Amino acid sequence: MILEAVMLNVRPNLENDFESAFQQASSIVASMDGYLSHELHRCLEVQGKYLLLIRWKTLEAHTIGFRNSIEYQQWKKLLHHFYEPFPIVEHFENIF
Amino acid sequence: MILEAVMLNVRPNLENDFESAFQQASSIVASMDGYLSHELHRCLEVQGKYLLLIRWKTLEAHTIGFRNSIEYQQWKKLLHHFYEPFPIVEHFENIF
Repeated sequence: MILEAVMLNVRPNLENDFESAFQQASSIVASMDGYLSHELHRCLEVQGKYLLLIRWKTLEAHTIGFRNSIEYQQWKKLLHHFYEPFPIVEHFENIF
Repeated sequence: MILEAVMLNVRPNLENDFESAFQQASSIVASMDGYLSHELHRCLEVQGKYLLLIRWKTLEAHTIGFRNSIEYQQWKKLLHHFYEPFPIVEHFENIF
């Protein structure tokens, strides 16, 4: 299992629109091969900040399977315009 | 449920020592009132980077209960010297 973790900063006053768009987009990622689960969390301290966690069977399920898919183009179209700055995506392996 | 999420940067060449110390420290946090679960993940892209996720029943279980406890002094002593820079702790509420 690989955890994709991304801190997202949504442009001011677009939080509600982002949350609606994410709800729609979540069915896209959930349909992909190697997808296991996802969580979207809203920060209590910083307005417009979110933590996205997506669990994949393998790193390549995300970096190759999803990113090279037609579905990723839909995901981008729904979500990428909300982010400022554009987020850094990192992957993690569970230790404990 | 409140998710405490922290990106940790461990000083160079101390990763193994940090992981051992964390294993010891994890029993401290797991004994606290309001603790639900925790995960420590190691970053694949950045050497020495970790993502710590701790789930608490309430925000105050962490910010008041744990941080004002004797146990927190032990946690600090075991772990804080590994971090450079000192991490920013944030709390999140689950949306989806």
